[in-house]
Amino acid sequence: MTAQDVMIRVTLPDGSVREYPKGSTGLDIAAQISEGLARNVLAAKVNGVVQDATRPIDTDATVQLLTWNDPEGKATFWHSSAHLLAEALESLYPGVKFGIGPAIETGFYYDVDLNGQHFSQDDFKKVEDKMLELARQKNAYVRKPVDKADAIAYFEEKGDPYKIDLLQGLEDGSITFYSQGNFTDLCRGPHIPNTGFIKAARLMNVAGAYWRGDEKNKMLTRIYAVTFPKQKELDDYLFLLEEAKKRDHRKLGKELDLFAFSDKVGQGLPLWLPKGALVRERLENFLRRAQVRAGYQPVVTPHIGSKQLYVTSGHWDKYGKDSFQPIHTPDEDEEFLLKPMNCPHHCEIYKTKPRSYRDLPLRLAEFGTVYRYEQSGELHGLTRVRGFTQDDAHIFCRPDQVKDEFMKVIDLVLYVFRSLGFEDYSAQVSLRDPENKEKYIGSDELWERAESAIIEAAAEKGLSTVTELGEAAFYGPKLDFMVRDALGRKWQLGTIQVDYNLPNRFELEYVGADNQKHRPVMIHRAPFGSMERFIAILIENTAGNFPLWLSPDQIAILPISEKYEDYANDLFFTLQERDIRGFVDLRDEKIGRKIRDAEVNKVPYMLIVGEKEQAEGKISVRRKGQGDLGSMSVDEFVALFQQEVKL
Amino acid sequence: MTAQDVMIRVTLPDGSVREYPKGSTGLDIAAQISEGLARNVLAAKVNGVVQDATRPIDTDATVQLLTWNDPEGKATFWHSSAHLLAEALESLYPGVKFGIGPAIETGFYYDVDLNGQHFSQDDFKKVEDKMLELARQKNAYVRKPVDKADAIAYFEEKGDPYKIDLLQGLEDGSITFYSQGNFTDLCRGPHIPNTGFIKAARLMNVAGAYWRGDEKNKMLTRIYAVTFPKQKELDDYLFLLEEAKKRDHRKLGKELDLFAFSDKVGQGLPLWLPKGALVRERLENFLRRAQVRAGYQPVVTPHIGSKQLYVTSGHWDKYGKDSFQPIHTPDEDEEFLLKPMNCPHHCEIYKTKPRSYRDLPLRLAEFGTVYRYEQSGELHGLTRVRGFTQDDAHIFCRPDQVKDEFMKVIDLVLYVFRSLGFEDYSAQVSLRDPENKEKYIGSDELWERAESAIIEAAAEKGLSTVTELGEAAFYGPKLDFMVRDALGRKWQLGTIQVDYNLPNRFELEYVGADNQKHRPVMIHRAPFGSMERFIAILIENTAGNFPLWLSPDQIAILPISEKYEDYANDLFFTLQERDIRGFVDLRDEKIGRKIRDAEVNKVPYMLIVGEKEQAEGKISVRRKGQGDLGSMSVDEFVALFQQEVKL
Repeated sequence: MTAQDVMIRVTLPDGSVREYPKGSTGLDIAAQISEGLARNVLAAKVNGVVQDATRPIDTDATVQLLTWNDPEGKATFWHSSAHLLAEALESLYPGVKFGIGPAIETGFYYDVDLNGQHFSQDDFKKVEDKMLELARQKNAYVRKPVDKADAIAYFEEKGDPYKIDLLQGLEDGSITFYSQGNFTDLCRGPHIPNTGFIKAARLMNVAGAYWRGDEKNKMLTRIYAVTFPKQKELDDYLFLLEEAKKRDHRKLGKELDLFAFSDKVGQGLPLWLPKGALVRERLENFLRRAQVRAGYQPVVTPHIGSKQLYVTSGHWDKYGKDSFQPIHTPDEDEEFLLKPMNCPHHCEIYKTKPRSYRDLPLRLAEFGTVYRYEQSGELHGLTRVRGFTQDDAHIFCRPDQVKDEFMKVIDLVLYVFRSLGFEDYSAQVSLRDPENKEKYIGSDELWERAESAIIEAAAEKGLSTVTELGEAAFYGPKLDFMVRDALGRKWQLGTIQVDYNLPNRFELEYVGADNQKHRPVMIHRAPFGSMERFIAILIENTAGNFPLWLSPDQIAILPISEKYEDYANDLFFTLQERDIRGFVDLRDEKIGRKIRDAEVNKVPYMLIVGEKEQAEGKISVRRKGQGDLGSMSVDEFVALFQQEVKL
Repeated sequence: MTAQDVMIRVTLPDGSVREYPKGSTGLDIAAQISEGLARNVLAAKVNGVVQDATRPIDTDATVQLLTWNDPEGKATFWHSSAHLLAEALESLYPGVKFGIGPAIETGFYYDVDLNGQHFSQDDFKKVEDKMLELARQKNAYVRKPVDKADAIAYFEEKGDPYKIDLLQGLEDGSITFYSQGNFTDLCRGPHIPNTGFIKAARLMNVAGAYWRGDEKNKMLTRIYAVTFPKQKELDDYLFLLEEAKKRDHRKLGKELDLFAFSDKVGQGLPLWLPKGALVRERLENFLRRAQVRAGYQPVVTPHIGSKQLYVTSGHWDKYGKDSFQPIHTPDEDEEFLLKPMNCPHHCEIYKTKPRSYRDLPLRLAEFGTVYRYEQSGELHGLTRVRGFTQDDAHIFCRPDQVKDEFMKVIDLVLYVFRSLGFEDYSAQVSLRDPENKEKYIGSDELWERAESAIIEAAAEKGLSTVTELGEAAFYGPKLDFMVRDALGRKWQLGTIQVDYNLPNRFELEYVGADNQKHRPVMIHRAPFGSMERFIAILIENTAGNFPLWLSPDQIAILPISEKYEDYANDLFFTLQERDIRGFVDLRDEKIGRKIRDAEVNKVPYMLIVGEKEQAEGKISVRRKGQGDLGSMSVDEFVALFQQEVKL
């Protein structure tokens, strides 16, 4: 027996290599590292495959120990929790039969046949309590390979037709059972070491679901639940859920009169009401100014284009039949399409005259409204719509300018994010799959140059990035930005995308210093992504409390009674002259009510005027979120106001 | 014999009634009034019918004496000139045969069969000289009723198949010949007294035209010409024509890089290039600011709407089959239309919540891009397009607010016109036909109230108006604005339109002070009309020399040589900081060439920098149209610049 027979070499994520006795488990390895880690290990990723932390490892391997902080650790935890839910249900609902019980993004569910027994929200608590009672028993999840025939026999005896149905589709030799406590399930695993890891459980919802999603089958009961390794994490989660509901942009959009939908206009086609239009206009102007400073040139193009334009761009062949269908004209043999993107129009602008290498980069910017067909079931508030306005621009540049342009776009994107309070952002660099280079358009040299340009630009700008091979589009590499909002949710925002395809298809050219014709590179970019989506995220991030400069109403002037209306109106015009917008609340209501309503409407500043204020020519200032700021002169208020806007 | 048998009573346009001997002619009446008038009378309008000024008047009648200043006088003059052209051609081109020779808006033409003889621009002078030679003979135009058979015999002898063709379609008893000098034509008249009135003639163009417009017939030669009662008027006309050509917005739009068209995008769908987009954006911002001050609230709506929206608005039934056809979706039974107007969308915004009398007027404004199908042959630059952006707004108000709102809109429209240099404007009030009240929607009371509101509002604002009965739309009265441009051409611009129809169709309501439901009145208005049309007019009015605040490039910095590039670039950034836009001309060209190019590109300020300027930290300033303004400091220039912008 040599050392190789008794020891295995384990490579850990930090690259270090350690030797352990053959047959060591993930838990053993964790215990060697630290007791704390051992307490938290949920599963082990061995040579890229997630398995039970309790399974022996018999060969040299790369091993990653998965905890709650790893998405795969969390998924294992929730999958094991689904088994715990099933065990609880089995002990509470005699004769219950089980369909499938997977982990999902927000917890897990189990589809069950309750054998005719009633089940509703009122029963949630009982089930949760039972789950925790079983969890406290710290029952191990035990894996057991089983013959197909034995497996079928087990579930026949138990009388569970769904598991038998599932078993029919499985290969003998690949079947395993997992048991914990008194419950055994057909399951591929992996699972956490024992139920004791589960310290908090909450049933979230109950719904109907056809077995195998087929409406010809029986309707089962789908029970959604979520579990956590600590009670505090469940509390935080429920709080965030409640917060998210309050911040739902569809709810706030309605309450704050920002936007609306009308069936007569059409689903997924937002109508921007005055207050929403104002926010949108301010945001556009903000970016417009930043873009002009950065050398962009605004253009305006129509919202339709002839079908031929999209045949050239390739869009017609690729998406035509899934898009809004062509528009015909009464007399002539013409077909138009609603534009799904602005790039073909911008290519046509590029082509309106000959371009020289000295004219590049040419940066054409447009707040371009595009229309894309989405099935009505897919529509969601402002984040999934059928018409939206991209803060679009296309940079036509020479291959040697790509890096510089990327650096400039990154600067612009980060300036936008920071100005709007998104401090927590990251980016993904999507490169070509080096094993499948033939899938991509454009020469090796162009790709290598552009990919390293992106990587270098991101590095020089100190951007925190992850790099994904094979995630590039067929027409070029890209950089996508993600922000994390006030609730910790991640949103995909702006994107910067290199494109070798459209310049080819539109046969774009410039005359180089060598007097020869060359093809420019095209860069697509949109810091917001779209006005609709960005404003939705902004609403959810701020709970409707926009930064002062973006607030539809910046001030509410609240006279204590009608005696001070004139003073209030004078004040309004004085402030309007100083570019401060808002309204005077002239309703015959108590001041307390006026303040409350202004707060509900998220008006940043409430200016209260009564006898004392009028006599002294002052105003009493209240800041939403801060309360009373005391009495001050109009000039003092304007200075305070402008100071906040500047920040 | 009584006085009635020998005298007739003539009512003149000023309402005065005079008696003349029976059988007096228009000329006789003119001679009684003044010798000057008699020299200028071209025709007479007797009881509403234009006739020769030399025809006897035998009954009491209203009589208007027509001169060159009356459109009908001018048309008679040009029609008579067509006969003179024919006479000249007959004397120069033996065997020439004549088709028709009408007056048109810009002169007249004659379709002729030159019997195989060559005719081109080189022959124009010869014909003009002959026309003037014949005109100097002061040959009278003599009217002669003629039998159809005699008329046919005359043209058979002459060998003119076209006149015979025309004669076939005429009733015996209604046929007249007119002769002057040696030329006789089949003609209904009327004509001027004699050829001596024609003092200037110019052939303008020659083209082919099928007889009776039918391509199966022979192709005739159409000769376009224009004549005037004074040589000076021809000179002025030719000058204006030349000027208009130079100012053609299609030509300047191309030369100044303002906009372009692309067949691939589609005919009549303008692409706004950076410089044009800048002008457009400035104009929009200018109006946007004025509108916010005037209490308008911007909204944003999609460029499509479900077909049902336009069924409700009535647009589908009325225009549906002549418009861009419906857009279908791949999966669902939905149809959308490109929006041809913004009002239905704004009605839906009105309906997003209950409105009270206190909420009115509600003024919703949108720079809304609409799409209307025009046949490709009808398209013309930016003035006739298939997609355009209206500076649209809809005022929803109570009936008692109509006058006030009209006054405010008139203020806004005049502010816009004056700010943009249109000092010469007028307006037309279009009212209902009082004889056909049943043609109109809305109660008598509403119409009377709105019509007098418009008339009073226009009067109180001192607007010069003409009132046209029966010119109102079926859904409400309106006020249209006309401006006269630098060449004296009239353009229809903004409009204010009352609408009782859409509020009905969309069942709009507000709760009145009486707590009852009422229907609001809707006012449509657009000061520019559309951005496209307005900018076209602005280009033609200014010959591309936009006011400084609208100029795409306000300055061109022209270094005398590359030695001063750094100084030029520093200057550029300094001025950019002060919100002055333009460019540095870094080309390796002589300063004279740089100045000339900047002038051609209509850049208002040229800032020349060389050794002296750099040494003194100054700039040499040239203003387009004014020349050299001398050397000044940057601050002096900025002050000068800002002073001009303010004006």
